[in-house]
Amino acid sequence: MAILPQEELDGIYAFAVDLGKRAGQMLTDAAQIRIDGGNTTQEQKEHVQKENAVDLVTETDENVEAFIKREIMEKYPAHKFVGEESYSKGASRDYLIDDSPTWCVDPLDGTVNYIHLFPMFCVSIAFIHNNKPLVGVINAPFLKQFFSSCAGRGAFMNETQRLPLVRNPIPPMPAKAPSGCIFSCEWGKDRRDVPEGNMHRKIESFVNMAAELGGRSGRGGMVHGVRSLGSATLDLAYVAMGSFDIWWEGGCWEWDVAAGIAILNEAGGLITTANPPQDYAGAPIEDVSLGSRLYLAIRPAGPSASETGRQSQERTVREVWRRVRNLDYSRPGA
Amino acid sequence: MAILPQEELDGIYAFAVDLGKRAGQMLTDAAQIRIDGGNTTQEQKEHVQKENAVDLVTETDENVEAFIKREIMEKYPAHKFVGEESYSKGASRDYLIDDSPTWCVDPLDGTVNYIHLFPMFCVSIAFIHNNKPLVGVINAPFLKQFFSSCAGRGAFMNETQRLPLVRNPIPPMPAKAPSGCIFSCEWGKDRRDVPEGNMHRKIESFVNMAAELGGRSGRGGMVHGVRSLGSATLDLAYVAMGSFDIWWEGGCWEWDVAAGIAILNEAGGLITTANPPQDYAGAPIEDVSLGSRLYLAIRPAGPSASETGRQSQERTVREVWRRVRNLDYSRPGA
Repeated sequence: MAILPQEELDGIYAFAVDLGKRAGQMLTDAAQIRIDGGNTTQEQKEHVQKENAVDLVTETDENVEAFIKREIMEKYPAHKFVGEESYSKGASRDYLIDDSPTWCVDPLDGTVNYIHLFPMFCVSIAFIHNNKPLVGVINAPFLKQFFSSCAGRGAFMNETQRLPLVRNPIPPMPAKAPSGCIFSCEWGKDRRDVPEGNMHRKIESFVNMAAELGGRSGRGGMVHGVRSLGSATLDLAYVAMGSFDIWWEGGCWEWDVAAGIAILNEAGGLITTANPPQDYAGAPIEDVSLGSRLYLAIRPAGPSASETGRQSQERTVREVWRRVRNLDYSRPGA
Repeated sequence: MAILPQEELDGIYAFAVDLGKRAGQMLTDAAQIRIDGGNTTQEQKEHVQKENAVDLVTETDENVEAFIKREIMEKYPAHKFVGEESYSKGASRDYLIDDSPTWCVDPLDGTVNYIHLFPMFCVSIAFIHNNKPLVGVINAPFLKQFFSSCAGRGAFMNETQRLPLVRNPIPPMPAKAPSGCIFSCEWGKDRRDVPEGNMHRKIESFVNMAAELGGRSGRGGMVHGVRSLGSATLDLAYVAMGSFDIWWEGGCWEWDVAAGIAILNEAGGLITTANPPQDYAGAPIEDVSLGSRLYLAIRPAGPSASETGRQSQERTVREVWRRVRNLDYSRPGA
């Protein structure tokens, strides 16, 4: 298994950061045209008025992916490219990432937010080698928050501020986690009203996490707050930042999480599977499988008087597993 | 009933905008100290390390309210002042706003987010006369989004960009609303696990709004997305901006919503009660009662071929009322 020299990785990081900035600017420019016409020609203005917002956003999504792909293929012609837009148009739903150097890109995560100009949207670019996300770039241009990381170099907001944000010292996980935690989750697209459907499995899990301690037959987790942003990528970025304590989600894809996983790992967070093993209290806590569509992330945590940071993260994973249902998102090849 | 001349209101608006900027800077400065020590003395650094985040934030909350109150009392000594912090310490939960000129202030909305440095927090300043919010200022300094309005002058983001953001033309409400809408809601603090408690009433309502059309015995609303930010004030600001289509909430207080109502009204939105009347399909849609703790807001909407904007907003109100439960938040004097 080939290992990349740090110097080469540093070059890839610098390239990805620049690419993320230019792609973010494309998202901003396209949004500005919908707001006030931007610096557009008469022809462009008429185009914007004729199309509906959804079509315009699809067009932007495709343009940004084509731009990123072109730049990568020019700079690194030997690397593989997996992008959300091109994948969605393919017939296969197989997991396509292997040990070779691969770029995994979502040109626009939080599409519904972007359509509505709600600032929780971003471009997400990851570089993966040996099936591990090593470089991550997440640019949320309306938020003016730019998250990035390079394996061996740390994780950053706006290139200079180390993640997690609070780090002198990094707080341990709360002693009674999930109580005291901010819990981030998404409702998703599967809204079938059937008792064993994912919507009802999610809701049951959310309510367990939220209900008072002692409620829900002892499963009540009394989290401090429940948040839903509509962007899996930004959920994960905020876990790396230390703003969210726990993110639990099923149904999103590798391009939604690859950059976030790179950043979270480098910031000192933990990510494993959303679906509790049968022996949730004792089973080993395994590294996440990138294409599994099932994710549970815990923020970076420092030691307390009685635990290491990792111990408090693992304790939190088990407390979440105790309260959530298995989700049903299958995936060939992952 | 005295009416203020526009000129006087313009002066109040300019004062409120300046006050909101300075208060927002105080929130930023206090957060920066927790991140990296800021420009602090050794003594301040030791203070930050000794206290926990919650105590530090309570201190900031109180300092910012005291600052705002002092500035207002100096400039407008005849006006009344109702602030979240001072109110919370009082014994009474009565609604205290009447026809006299009154400032209603939340120095920090989204406190839990602020503790965690998640950017969805803000300062909220409203000027109210004859029980109507006439001037609103919401400053979310980490988001670099500053919302403001003055009755008769319009509503703005960052002082120059008119709200709603998309306005050439302002889109009508979707024909099948709530389908196609972004629905914003909060889990709140009442987490009692009792069937008739507010948590279960809220959950049942959320699930009705989210489930597939035809599901939930015909109540499924298939909203496009469900969002929870942890800040009632920003929920409402994003409705005024046009980013959220519907916000439905019970349990927050007048200082959480007064500035947002001023901004929403001036942007062309609608706000009424969260609790459906018995005849939800035919009852008149009344203006919200500021202290009712029950709010349903609909974004600004333009006309379609078959409806005025107001008609499409009212249709949406009734479609929400059809799907939600009554919430139980009592209030003396409102």
